[in-house]
Amino acid sequence: MKAVRLHQYGQSPLVEEVAEPTVSGPWDVIVDVGAAGLCRTDLHIIEGQWDPIQHPSLPYILGHENAGWVREVGSAVHNVKVGDTVIMHPLTSCGLCPACRVGQDSHCENATFPGINVNGGMAGQLLTNARAVVKLDDGLEPRDVAALADAGLTAYHAVRKAAGDLFPGTHAVVIGAGGLGHIGIQALAAITSATITVVDRSEEALELARQLGAHHTVLSFNDDQVEQQVLDITGGGAHVVFDFVGEKSAELLAPKLLRNRGSHYVIGYGGAVNLPTIDIISREINVIGNLVGTYNDLVELMTLTSQGRVTLHTAVYPLDAVNDAIADLEAGRLVGRGILVP
Amino acid sequence: MKAVRLHQYGQSPLVEEVAEPTVSGPWDVIVDVGAAGLCRTDLHIIEGQWDPIQHPSLPYILGHENAGWVREVGSAVHNVKVGDTVIMHPLTSCGLCPACRVGQDSHCENATFPGINVNGGMAGQLLTNARAVVKLDDGLEPRDVAALADAGLTAYHAVRKAAGDLFPGTHAVVIGAGGLGHIGIQALAAITSATITVVDRSEEALELARQLGAHHTVLSFNDDQVEQQVLDITGGGAHVVFDFVGEKSAELLAPKLLRNRGSHYVIGYGGAVNLPTIDIISREINVIGNLVGTYNDLVELMTLTSQGRVTLHTAVYPLDAVNDAIADLEAGRLVGRGILVP
Amino acid sequence: MKAVRLHQYGQSPLVEEVAEPTVSGPWDVIVDVGAAGLCRTDLHIIEGQWDPIQHPSLPYILGHENAGWVREVGSAVHNVKVGDTVIMHPLTSCGLCPACRVGQDSHCENATFPGINVNGGMAGQLLTNARAVVKLDDGLEPRDVAALADAGLTAYHAVRKAAGDLFPGTHAVVIGAGGLGHIGIQALAAITSATITVVDRSEEALELARQLGAHHTVLSFNDDQVEQQVLDITGGGAHVVFDFVGEKSAELLAPKLLRNRGSHYVIGYGGAVNLPTIDIISREINVIGNLVGTYNDLVELMTLTSQGRVTLHTAVYPLDAVNDAIADLEAGRLVGRGILVP
Amino acid sequence: MKAVRLHQYGQSPLVEEVAEPTVSGPWDVIVDVGAAGLCRTDLHIIEGQWDPIQHPSLPYILGHENAGWVREVGSAVHNVKVGDTVIMHPLTSCGLCPACRVGQDSHCENATFPGINVNGGMAGQLLTNARAVVKLDDGLEPRDVAALADAGLTAYHAVRKAAGDLFPGTHAVVIGAGGLGHIGIQALAAITSATITVVDRSEEALELARQLGAHHTVLSFNDDQVEQQVLDITGGGAHVVFDFVGEKSAELLAPKLLRNRGSHYVIGYGGAVNLPTIDIISREINVIGNLVGTYNDLVELMTLTSQGRVTLHTAVYPLDAVNDAIADLEAGRLVGRGILVP
Repeated sequence: MKAVRLHQYGQSPLVEEVAEPTVSGPWDVIVDVGAAGLCRTDLHIIEGQWDPIQHPSLPYILGHENAGWVREVGSAVHNVKVGDTVIMHPLTSCGLCPACRVGQDSHCENATFPGINVNGGMAGQLLTNARAVVKLDDGLEPRDVAALADAGLTAYHAVRKAAGDLFPGTHAVVIGAGGLGHIGIQALAAITSATITVVDRSEEALELARQLGAHHTVLSFNDDQVEQQVLDITGGGAHVVFDFVGEKSAELLAPKLLRNRGSHYVIGYGGAVNLPTIDIISREINVIGNLVGTYNDLVELMTLTSQGRVTLHTAVYPLDAVNDAIADLEAGRLVGRGILVP
Repeated sequence: MKAVRLHQYGQSPLVEEVAEPTVSGPWDVIVDVGAAGLCRTDLHIIEGQWDPIQHPSLPYILGHENAGWVREVGSAVHNVKVGDTVIMHPLTSCGLCPACRVGQDSHCENATFPGINVNGGMAGQLLTNARAVVKLDDGLEPRDVAALADAGLTAYHAVRKAAGDLFPGTHAVVIGAGGLGHIGIQALAAITSATITVVDRSEEALELARQLGAHHTVLSFNDDQVEQQVLDITGGGAHVVFDFVGEKSAELLAPKLLRNRGSHYVIGYGGAVNLPTIDIISREINVIGNLVGTYNDLVELMTLTSQGRVTLHTAVYPLDAVNDAIADLEAGRLVGRGILVP
Repeated sequence: MKAVRLHQYGQSPLVEEVAEPTVSGPWDVIVDVGAAGLCRTDLHIIEGQWDPIQHPSLPYILGHENAGWVREVGSAVHNVKVGDTVIMHPLTSCGLCPACRVGQDSHCENATFPGINVNGGMAGQLLTNARAVVKLDDGLEPRDVAALADAGLTAYHAVRKAAGDLFPGTHAVVIGAGGLGHIGIQALAAITSATITVVDRSEEALELARQLGAHHTVLSFNDDQVEQQVLDITGGGAHVVFDFVGEKSAELLAPKLLRNRGSHYVIGYGGAVNLPTIDIISREINVIGNLVGTYNDLVELMTLTSQGRVTLHTAVYPLDAVNDAIADLEAGRLVGRGILVP
Repeated sequence: MKAVRLHQYGQSPLVEEVAEPTVSGPWDVIVDVGAAGLCRTDLHIIEGQWDPIQHPSLPYILGHENAGWVREVGSAVHNVKVGDTVIMHPLTSCGLCPACRVGQDSHCENATFPGINVNGGMAGQLLTNARAVVKLDDGLEPRDVAALADAGLTAYHAVRKAAGDLFPGTHAVVIGAGGLGHIGIQALAAITSATITVVDRSEEALELARQLGAHHTVLSFNDDQVEQQVLDITGGGAHVVFDFVGEKSAELLAPKLLRNRGSHYVIGYGGAVNLPTIDIISREINVIGNLVGTYNDLVELMTLTSQGRVTLHTAVYPLDAVNDAIADLEAGRLVGRGILVP
């Protein structure tokens, strides 16, 4: 089959013929890939940033946001059958460790992470497992949902954790209306009744945010101005701030946008939270970490997508054109999420 | 009546005759003080540290941990009657603002804080209100419980918030087994089924911790050694770390003691939490602020005290000896909590 | 002032001149009534059904769903001021009893219930208290919201309690799309992401249900047919059934519509739940009682109303025409909720 | 191997030689049985009561409360290894269905139930699966814990679900201090801080209850007397009633013992709950079903057992004496839980 393989850090991946994966374990599932998302994490992988954390063996196939059709299943698989349309949770979890037993699949002790530490989905076929596959409703196509498998799932997971606190009259503030943020806004509109205020440096992103459900938007010039505007809009601060940036001072601004007893949900990363303990206790505020999402989160997100409540803008490339897609992404020419189709 | 009044920051308070308080509002309650706790906050008040935050009008009466007997009530008070033994929640909350309507009394928008920003309880009588008084069971004496009104309440509040996560097999780590911490340990033993590990720099404090319910103790020489010992004891990190210190590097150590998905409860203060966002998200950990406690927390804490599950060591002084008590506290000669009795 | 007073059970109330209420307590609030809802409970009161439960002293003024403008306040009231537009929580709670301290106002031990056990709001003025008044946003008029004060609040309360279980992919079934049910449907659409199926005996009610957000409707001829249709629509049963009828076999049908681990929310009344314990445990299902709503529920419901997410159809009558309104209600000629305007 | 097989309903099971189980699936686990609990359910199985529900193929091996040592594992099993001491969750869940994905193993759509619908553990060996086995701490012996696998788990599950509502000052009432109830009392004492009141018809059972942690006991002569005594002890009713009987009027008494907003946890069965909807709503009370327990519940229960906080009284019989044990159980001569040891 054809596949996009990374041979050396710092060099463009190659599109080449490789052997097809085979079923060896009882829970293995092989999927005919219908679409694989391309995202900034792929750029970081190519640069070598993930090598010390995940240390995959080169060469290997990229692609960690995958959807397609079941081609073959292992002997113990009974939740999907050949031909089913599926999206893949990014981790192949084990179902036996403590994290799996409480439904926290993304903390599974025995998972592989296709496209990150083993072969991924920028190929004709992908090897995954029974606990990673989510069956799609009729009407959902792999190319329309693949990019929700990781980025969308992460945004949804954070919103879902906070949803119990976001009832009528509460304020949710979203920092960053980019790839993750614009899914977060749709999730907030779909599953909470909070008033949604979005902060971004781009007027274009804010325009999209309004279309997706934001009630208020704040164009960010400097942090003091944002702080004042958000405090005014929210009547004294947000109940929850979703920080989809996590760097470039967003992580320092976020706690200032909270009201007493509010929570700063950290989703983006790169910077550092730095908060005097006197501020934390006198305002009784919280900082909440968020990592990918659970299998159940992905099932719920697919339900919302099937219902038309979450949508993605995509730009489709054939697999052969992966390096064009990468170049477009790096140059800022790629509008929406890049999707590779074998 | 006799009262301990602060006339000038940096100078010892004076014991002097002052006018008794009078009932003017419908919810006012005047209490014959039975006991008033003395704590480090009083030292900070005398030094003037709280002036910019609470700016009381000098001279005023100290004492923010108070218990006694109801002497007189306003026209609308029906929850206590003259002669009842009571302990006072530190804030006189309003019952009408949003925080009060959800039971978060310590965030009341209209409260006074006797002993901090208005006259307190180091006196023959104290003016408080109907929403602050908790009736005590027979057998509880003001001098035995007064010091729980603020310090004890703060420790209990944090444990109570975390209790839902501390079921059999989980690990709670307590940093600091001093005034607050030793109440926290008793609360953990009483209302959770977590395994309790206590970290302190004093072997004497650890000995007390073991008597109060700690299953493991770690004598702290340096942070690296503590980290390794705690990770070993807890099998990979705590589910919840209660940081009763919040300064002197405890606030930096605490997150290192957590397992994935664990929470750092900040109760002590003075330092600053400083966490890279990549750590927060990759481990999905949380930082949780804690402020005093609610009225309901105080009711529950008094129930535990009445049941003998929480006890305090106290050193009792007559009101006239307040400056001896202060000197003993400053010199480290005061074992247990100092209590002033009019 | 003019008022609608009930002099004798079984006889029509009289519209007559009575003395205006006066402020006597510190938390008293007198409101110029803008609108008072008329509902079936008023019919039951007139029939005498509530006498043994609430035993009001006759004659007294009817009207337990009230909104208007603040006219005068007691000495301790600071949350509203003269001229504010307000809706009244049905109970004047005390703010001191255990139920109040946890925000469960409808279980207050010291409340009056205007229009039920003391003078109500079918009059020029109403005596209530500071803990019952909810300030309305600009743009909300008393006549548009008054009927939400009791019936709407009850429906919202039930949905709000269940909301944490009603995420994408779950099924909520509503039995009865009448006065309460059609608010419940709007609340479900506004604050949950469940798929909503509505069961009613009237095609007209189902048509309204679809307009208000129902995804599926089932016209009820007999219980077996309803059961089969609901199980088909929900793929094996509802996660939550909201039983707004509670009698005439709805209360027996409801548990049959649940999937394993589902909950039957009882809101209407009149019948009896009768469930073999083997069914309760083998399916691990629940029966959940619901009573009116809390003050905070009413605040949230007013927020939704202000945002246009909950609306009421009303038929307005002058106070003098109360007996026409009653006749219309009894005869089934009253479309929407009846509102009396002084 | 030797095994206790039921050949015909209504006849004593036979102890006979049968073929050993073999590993055929990737998650299969074969255990050398160390102990198998005998309980009333076995009597009901022999009588044929479970045939229409579970319809096992006769002859089959009894024994649904099992513990032992791992003998052999399938190709995909990595959570236990040969020689590990284990207790078995009663169901062999699949890990793939929706119930499993949220940790609700006892509602698995694809489980077998050894000893109930397939061969059980009254034998030398038992076939189970990787998702059913819980590794035991050193010091726990199969014969000491086997009877906790089903009866104990059921009691713990109910207490665990209610634990969040059972904080200091609350009242838990236990109806029935028998096989399940006496585990329930220990669980209440271990993981909640409620005041525990136990109702039973046997003074001997109440004496045991007091030793295990009950604060109050009520000897039951008739329901009216129990109701009055419980209302007195609890100051107006329980927050939670655990009904371990579920028949013989206990299920009708239980709701009368609740305070407003209280919950009736149904665990025992045989009767029927019959509650007017007006009672359910005016008191806002709940009826909560409880079924066995989750895998995580069993892990927690084993932790408590390992810590010495839950203990069982047992009477040990060799496997050959199974019919003596059955006769003792039927005749009421069996004190504690009967345990069969191969």
